Formats: sequence, structure tokens, C-alpha cells
Amino acid sequence: MKYLIASLAAASFISAVAQQTIFDHNSIVSPEINADNSVTFRFYAPKAAEVRLLADCLEPSANNLMSRDSVGVWSLTTPQLDGELYCYSYLVDSVRINDPSNVYRVRDIATTFDMLIIDEGVGEIYKVGDVAHGNISKVWYSLPSDKRSRRMTIYTPPGYADNSGKSYPVLYLLHGMGGDENAWSELGRAAQILDNLIASGKVEPMIVVMPNGNMAQTAAPGESAAGMTVPTGMLPRTMDGSYESTFPELVEFVDSHYNTIAEKSARAIAGLSMGGFHSMQISKEYPDMFDYVGLFSAAVLPREDAQSEVYKNIDDKLALQFEKAPRLYWIGIGKDDFLYNANVDYRKRLDDRNFKYIYHESDGGHSWRNWRKYLTEFTPLLFK
Amino acid sequence: MKYLIASLAAASFISAVAQQTIFDHNSIVSPEINADNSVTFRFYAPKAAEVRLLADCLEPSANNLMSRDSVGVWSLTTPQLDGELYCYSYLVDSVRINDPSNVYRVRDIATTFDMLIIDEGVGEIYKVGDVAHGNISKVWYSLPSDKRSRRMTIYTPPGYADNSGKSYPVLYLLHGMGGDENAWSELGRAAQILDNLIASGKVEPMIVVMPNGNMAQTAAPGESAAGMTVPTGMLPRTMDGSYESTFPELVEFVDSHYNTIAEKSARAIAGLSMGGFHSMQISKEYPDMFDYVGLFSAAVLPREDAQSEVYKNIDDKLALQFEKAPRLYWIGIGKDDFLYNANVDYRKRLDDRNFKYIYHESDGGHSWRNWRKYLTEFTPLLFK
Repeated sequence: MKYLIASLAAASFISAVAQQTIFDHNSIVSPEINADNSVTFRFYAPKAAEVRLLADCLEPSANNLMSRDSVGVWSLTTPQLDGELYCYSYLVDSVRINDPSNVYRVRDIATTFDMLIIDEGVGEIYKVGDVAHGNISKVWYSLPSDKRSRRMTIYTPPGYADNSGKSYPVLYLLHGMGGDENAWSELGRAAQILDNLIASGKVEPMIVVMPNGNMAQTAAPGESAAGMTVPTGMLPRTMDGSYESTFPELVEFVDSHYNTIAEKSARAIAGLSMGGFHSMQISKEYPDMFDYVGLFSAAVLPREDAQSEVYKNIDDKLALQFEKAPRLYWIGIGKDDFLYNANVDYRKRLDDRNFKYIYHESDGGHSWRNWRKYLTEFTPLLFK
Repeated sequence: MKYLIASLAAASFISAVAQQTIFDHNSIVSPEINADNSVTFRFYAPKAAEVRLLADCLEPSANNLMSRDSVGVWSLTTPQLDGELYCYSYLVDSVRINDPSNVYRVRDIATTFDMLIIDEGVGEIYKVGDVAHGNISKVWYSLPSDKRSRRMTIYTPPGYADNSGKSYPVLYLLHGMGGDENAWSELGRAAQILDNLIASGKVEPMIVVMPNGNMAQTAAPGESAAGMTVPTGMLPRTMDGSYESTFPELVEFVDSHYNTIAEKSARAIAGLSMGGFHSMQISKEYPDMFDYVGLFSAAVLPREDAQSEVYKNIDDKLALQFEKAPRLYWIGIGKDDFLYNANVDYRKRLDDRNFKYIYHESDGGHSWRNWRKYLTEFTPLLFK
């Protein structure tokens, strides 16, 4: 049998891809996180004329030109970096490509980035910790008013599967335009953030429901019968009121299929960008449903031009929502976000009426780096 | 609000990656599946000297040199292709890279391939069908003899979540060396195969349990606290008997946490390569546990040199297993597989003792193309 194991491990096959290349060892190590938390990126391209690093760990003004060694390996070492999840690509003779030495990639709508985590600071919250883990499920469901089978992602906390007698609060966590039910669990590191913050005692164990907010999709691209294309623009039925008006049916599905605490004090809703818009609309439309609301870089202006009843009489509905005193109404936005002024206007609307909220202003703009951080700041405030 | 939606959809940001590029529309369409099921691959690289297509849809002898147009777009159109799931990469001036226009990629251990499906023939079984879908869950568990928290993938069939009174048979589906708990659901398209074959009435609704067979891993690379490295060789404790000897505890976990029919007639075990070896060993070690056994390109020779009791007295144990007459013992192998002769030897061992099995010989070798097909051929034979 020894010879078989050797064959399995070392097998060299006829074609590069027709057969399984069991250990296709790429001798280029990239990215390499150095002891001082600088990172060395490497890319082998002996015939390229110019290779640049596109990376959110570089300052916009930094030199991103990689250096070629005599063999043809291009490399660049960054300064010491803060703990974070960073994304990057290479620009090889003006063509953006992924790092062939790194299998960790995240899809952001129609673009794929290479990924690395420096596990200090927030990076320690984003990495897979040596802690108890919750389970992630991809769940198909249909609603009384929408018979299509649609897909959502559900996080159940550690212990959920064992303690069948225990019930949990629920956070509904919504993605932005162009995103889907995979966005928060993949780009957003939601499971890792919850696992790590629950383990440290900062966050209450909770179920997190991550639905698909695009009414024109039943699931993420490639995960439905619609096939393997990605949206290249705004989808039909985006922000037309139908997602908001069917949301109570989704809550009812979750309450009837999971061990939830089915009451306002145990429900939160939060979302980024379009998902912040949705969270604002849904929470004011159903003022007895959510005691915790989070607007992350939200597209918060009401659609007063739209036909749906959902977008009418906003001020009256907000008044009713705040009269019922939600335990938390949290607004987070980056100073450089293109929605910054829209959030200034929305806060003024709340301030003018003396509606209470918590405001969190961060550096940066309309980015997953902020949304991940907002999740780490918002979830410790829930269900306490 | 209209201006905001326009901003969201068209927003152009400061940095290529620091901000979310909401619709980073890549104007190159690749791959394009043409009406006649030929496929056109395109890659924009105006400064490249040579671009080749590495693809398992090309014959090994086919010309894989792509042609450059005046703008710098390299392209190649294949002949008409059969329905299949195909993998490919580009070789750009001798450097293997992924297609930047295609976000559909599969990781095979340490290598990432671009993917496409032609949805005829078996392709119709691999695509996401317009059918009822089962749910995929990533489940953490620990066992009495192994307190580590380890991860497995579980498929529950359509209706499972609703019919809490109904119990289901279980297929344990094992990966090969270097693979992990993601292999069958991602490379193997297990959920799509089961969904489509259940919908067509060819396969009984069943639970599919896809554990991690590497005792040195608690989960796939990047999914455990071990961090984001991929194995570059055989892991410790691979095929040392400990996976086999703790398997009954895994079965007990599944039976106690899921609505299973907890009896031999409702349990199957199958695996590819190392997973075929595991399936052979486990099924003979516990002859009252599985009525259905599938060996896909299995590394079937017993490890008579090994220390574990699991690998001793193979003939006696096989005799006991076959005396109890499993309902199905299925062996599949490709004519070009490097394990072909090992399977000839193993079949002779069974034949000499008049042990009954079904033998399926296919074209091709040690490849996921074969293992997906074997799954479509094996599952219709189960639990009937």
C-alpha cells in the first residue's frame, strides 16, 4: 500500500486539468505575512513588462510598482500593516488578474479579489478563531405571497443544534445593491465575527438571517436556475417596496422553522447601503417587529417618488416607530462615503423630531472594511 | 431618491479595491457558450506574446494557442462540446492564471480553476435546476473519542425542513487525499446532482453527509483556526486507521441530530480515491452498518503493512461483510486511472471468493469528471 500512497501524493498526470492534480504545489509563496506584519506579495511572470499591486492595504499615494528579480518573480513588501482583512489583485501589463498562488478569494458582485487576514485587532475578529463555531446553512424557502423558492443564509450559534429547548434572538442582516445572500457570510465574515464575539462574551448568542434582497433573484448568481451570470447593473424590482412588504412573511418563516424568541425585544434588523435603506423602511413599516435597527452606510433617503405604499407618509410612520421607543437605532457612516450627505440629511430629519439614535462616524467610505467593523460594533449592543 | 439609486449603481470610487465597486462591468465576455455548444474563451492582454487555453474540454492534441485581435483580445472557440462541467485556465506567457471575466471558480486543493457548465446530458444534472432544492449546511461537531470541533457538510433533501415527522436514509460521501468537507459539494456538485435526480424521481430523497476525512484537519483550509494555508503534501494521520475506527461515532452523531432511518438498509457509504479506500475499510469493519457501498476510483489495496487493527485480517472481515450480503457493492474506475491495476487486483480478490459486486468501467482517469458521473450512476441504485 505504501506505493499507492506515494502515487496518490505525487501523481503527475497527463493533462493540466483533465485529471485531478492532487498537490499542484506552486513554489511561489504569496502573500507572505512577515513577522512584523508587513506583507510580501509575489508573482512569477518572467515576460511581463510591468506588474503593479492593487491593494487596499496600500495608501492610495504609495508606489505599487512591483520589482522583478533575475528569475522573473515580481515582488513588493508593504510597510507594517494593521490587523485587517485586505483585498488585492495584480495589474500585469495593465490587465487585472488574481494571484495564482492564493486560493482565498472573495467575489464582490462581478469582481473577484484575492484576500488575506492579518490577525491582530479587528483581524482577530475576522479570522476563524479557536473557539466554538456556529453553523452556516443555505436554506431554500417560499412565502405565502411569493411561491418561488428563494435562498437565504442562516447562521445558528454554537450550541444551537444541541440545546433544542433553548430559544434565541434573531438578527436580520441585509446586503447592498448587487449583493446577495452570500455577501455577509463571505465578504462580511459574519460567521467568524459572531463566533469570535460570542466566544469572548461580548455578543449574545443569536441566529443571523441573511436573505437575498433582490426581488428579481431567487438566489446568488450561479446558485439558481437563472444560470451563471452576474448582474451588470441594477436589477428589476430593486427598491420597489415588494421586499419590504413581504418581510413579515420571512420573519414568520424563520419563527416557525427555528428556535427563536418571537418577539420585538429579540429581533434586530440591519443592513448596508441598499440593505440600510431596506432596514429603515421595514422597521418603520412594522414598528412592533424590531427593537434594534442598524443602518450601515445606508441609502437612507425615502423614495417619495415611488408608487409603493411603503414609501409614503414616511414622517408619520417614523413618528409611530419612535413613539414605541426602539431600544437601539444605530447609524454608521464613513466620512468619505458618497452617501455621507444623505445621512446628514436623514439625521437632521430625526433630530428635528427629537427621535433618539446612536451615531457612529468612521473613517473611510462605502466599503466592506467599514461594514465588517460596523457589525463588530453593532452586535454587542443587541439583546441586552 | 432617484439620484441616489443612480449613484449606487454607477458610483466610481477612489481606489480600485478600497471601496466597493458595485458593478465593475468587465466588457470582455468569457466564457461565451454559443448556440451550437461551442465555447468562446476571451482574454484581454494587449502586451502578452502568447496566450494558451488549458481546458479539459480540449482534446490533449488540440491546438490551444489563442488568437490575438487588433485590440489585444485573445480568443479561442472550441468545437461543439458535449454537456459537461468543464474547468480551464489561461497560460499567459507561460504563467497559469484564472480568467478575470469569470467569477465561477472551483478550488481543487491548492489550485483554482475557472468553471463552466454546458447544460445538456450530464451538464443538466450538474447545473442548478429549476427544481426543489435541498439545503446545504456546514456543521461543526465533536465525538466522544475526539473532542475537537470538526466540520462536515450536510445536504438535507427538499422537504426535509418541513416534514419533521419523516425520516430519511443517509449517504456518507467521502473525499480523496488532499480534499476536504467542501470537495463533494463544490467540485462534486453533490447538491445539484441530488436535487436534479430527486426531482426526476430517479433518486430517493436522502441526507448526504460529507465529512472531512483528514484526521489532521478540523476543517477545510481557511475554515479552521489552523489558518489559510493549503496542504502541499500528505497530511499526518492520513490513512492510519483512526478515521475508520471513529466512524461509528460520526454515524451516531448524525442519527441523533437528524431525522434518519437509523438502520443498515438505509445507510450507504461511498468515496473517491482515498475516500474509496475509507469506504472499503469502514464498511468491512462494521458489516452491520452499511447496505450500500461505492468505491469510486478507489485506492482499494488494504494496508497490510500498517499498525492499525483496522487494516489487519482483511480477508476474514470481507468474508463476514459479504456473508451478510450487502444490497449493493459498487466499484467504478476509469480505464486510464493510475489505480486501474489496483482495482483489477481487488476485483480478483473479490472474484476468487465469489463476493458479488457491480463493476462500472468508464473512459478517462482519476478525475472529478468521472466522480461526478459515478455519483449520478450510484445514487439511483440506493434505498430501493
